[in-house]
Amino acid sequence: MATTGISSGKLRGLMKLADASGKFKMMAIDQRGSMVTKLAEVLDIDKTNVKYSDVASLKTLITRILAPNSTAVLTDPIYGHPYSITEIPRDVALLLAYEESGYVSEGVSENERLSNPIENWTIEKAQRAGADAIKLLAYYHPDASETTLQHQQAFVRHVGDECEKHDLPFLLELVSYALEGTTKNVGFAKQKPDLVIRSVEEFTDPSYKVDILKLEFPADLKYTAEYQDRAFYAGESAYDLSEVKQVCQRLDEASTLPWVILSAGVDIEEFIENVQLATAAGASGFLCGRAIWKDAVDFYPDTGAVTQFLENEATTNFHNANAAAENALPWFEHRHFGGAENIHLAKQSENWHQDYQ
Amino acid sequence: MATTGISSGKLRGLMKLADASGKFKMMAIDQRGSMVTKLAEVLDIDKTNVKYSDVASLKTLITRILAPNSTAVLTDPIYGHPYSITEIPRDVALLLAYEESGYVSEGVSENERLSNPIENWTIEKAQRAGADAIKLLAYYHPDASETTLQHQQAFVRHVGDECEKHDLPFLLELVSYALEGTTKNVGFAKQKPDLVIRSVEEFTDPSYKVDILKLEFPADLKYTAEYQDRAFYAGESAYDLSEVKQVCQRLDEASTLPWVILSAGVDIEEFIENVQLATAAGASGFLCGRAIWKDAVDFYPDTGAVTQFLENEATTNFHNANAAAENALPWFEHRHFGGAENIHLAKQSENWHQDYQ
Repeated sequence: MATTGISSGKLRGLMKLADASGKFKMMAIDQRGSMVTKLAEVLDIDKTNVKYSDVASLKTLITRILAPNSTAVLTDPIYGHPYSITEIPRDVALLLAYEESGYVSEGVSENERLSNPIENWTIEKAQRAGADAIKLLAYYHPDASETTLQHQQAFVRHVGDECEKHDLPFLLELVSYALEGTTKNVGFAKQKPDLVIRSVEEFTDPSYKVDILKLEFPADLKYTAEYQDRAFYAGESAYDLSEVKQVCQRLDEASTLPWVILSAGVDIEEFIENVQLATAAGASGFLCGRAIWKDAVDFYPDTGAVTQFLENEATTNFHNANAAAENALPWFEHRHFGGAENIHLAKQSENWHQDYQ
Repeated sequence: MATTGISSGKLRGLMKLADASGKFKMMAIDQRGSMVTKLAEVLDIDKTNVKYSDVASLKTLITRILAPNSTAVLTDPIYGHPYSITEIPRDVALLLAYEESGYVSEGVSENERLSNPIENWTIEKAQRAGADAIKLLAYYHPDASETTLQHQQAFVRHVGDECEKHDLPFLLELVSYALEGTTKNVGFAKQKPDLVIRSVEEFTDPSYKVDILKLEFPADLKYTAEYQDRAFYAGESAYDLSEVKQVCQRLDEASTLPWVILSAGVDIEEFIENVQLATAAGASGFLCGRAIWKDAVDFYPDTGAVTQFLENEATTNFHNANAAAENALPWFEHRHFGGAENIHLAKQSENWHQDYQ
């Protein structure tokens, strides 16, 4: 419990990322690889022919219409920030992504994933550009080779050190993957709880200096018995709902830091269930992109139709996600902080301005 | 006109300091010397016996109750920030003062004023601590000695350079003073228009890299003929109201940058008139402390009575000031920026993240 207080920049950043009651209702529009892939599909062209201006203007439009619903917007410094900065309202915090989109394949059968920074981009630049916090996505499989584990751990540790140095909140996103085959099957669904929880156990170590974890839902509702009458059910069961709830509880016990849930592009109905289950177990909100706005991309380049979708269905999706997140645990009520009464500046004294380095 | 765009940190900072329509309704609680003096008077003790904790807790209380009315709070890193940081709402921007309170006397009869930085405090620290912008108060009399002028100019230029380096908005406050006698007489009132305007002419030079000017009202309504039936009228006239309006116009013509009006501790009735006249001439709002909350200090250490005053009279004062500022010119409509359609990131391109240094 952080009764020693929170450093100034991290404290102010945490306050800005959440709503006034401490709940995170954050929007992600930092997708790069997945958005290029989707645009190529929609425009029926090769990925290499998707133009920068298409990606940038689509991000601008999504940000303009949806950002006012959020407490913070996560965007990227390549396609997002340069054209969207004026679309993020003054009272919505700015999160900037640090990692290069995607991953480099590694391992004997190239089945492991290495994350890397965006070239010519630094956390110092992000701070000067006005970022209120830094987000890093690290792919992680706890059974990957030692080489891969060490690379990913060192990368996360580097960002933790830089965020400490610049006194910015560090939001770490962990994404699991399959060492064999794909993630879209009952076998992977069964592995997922352990993959998510073991990854959390690794990166909650204080040496990584993470402030907030952005996590996958630790089970797959597509393979959960009680959801077989839902549109997203995949036809097999890996567990039942009571087991999924236990997994969420185990995750919350493992997470010695506040955590939020990500959408990984699932449909909005499934995401709302994820938010409800996660917040019931102790999550502090969400950081969600595609579940809210992905279907808007189908209408591109008809920006009128994109706009209409964003103003209607996507806005309703956001409102529904926000409503589900009302049940979230305020970040300062997480046991890491121990309640609002424990929230104060580190080294609070009349010499703070001298002691602060 | 800044059609070349605005750098990322300054753009985001400017957006945060103002309301969504670009009008500044900012609150100052960075007073140090004047607050110690006032507390000594109220507590009937020597200034040297005023405790740090009295100043800090009074600032915390004022910030807690009044900050929600503002678009930005200006506080100081010594008494203010360490204890008030958690009282500034997430959607209210944070301005930190850079200068040491008061001044060092200079010149043959010690009638000139030199400003200095707070010891062991830097703009780099302010940025890491979460400041959205930097405020510097520089005393200035254009007829001071060359030594004094050069010292003040160099100090302002240093802060301008540092703010550029850290990409933070630079808000420069200029305060005039009398080279002979005091400022509370009709003679000084007559000089004031020229003092304010000539100071603005100096510091709007691009070499100072100022973003917003925080200015005294360029005349003294206590010595304005039409105000003789008002409580604040001092019994003599330096000018009439039409002349004061012309002075405000001249000031606006001189200010090639957006400007806001300060209160210098006048009573609220006079300040509201100042805001109305200044915004009618082109000011972009106010940054006001004492005119809003100063009478609360009279009740210290009865914090119940202080609270009651702040929640009632002071809150009403703030609402009245905000209402008067509705007539302000949005910062982006100032001729320096040339309208909302010209507001975009500097070096906006797909290589921005690489080019941004």
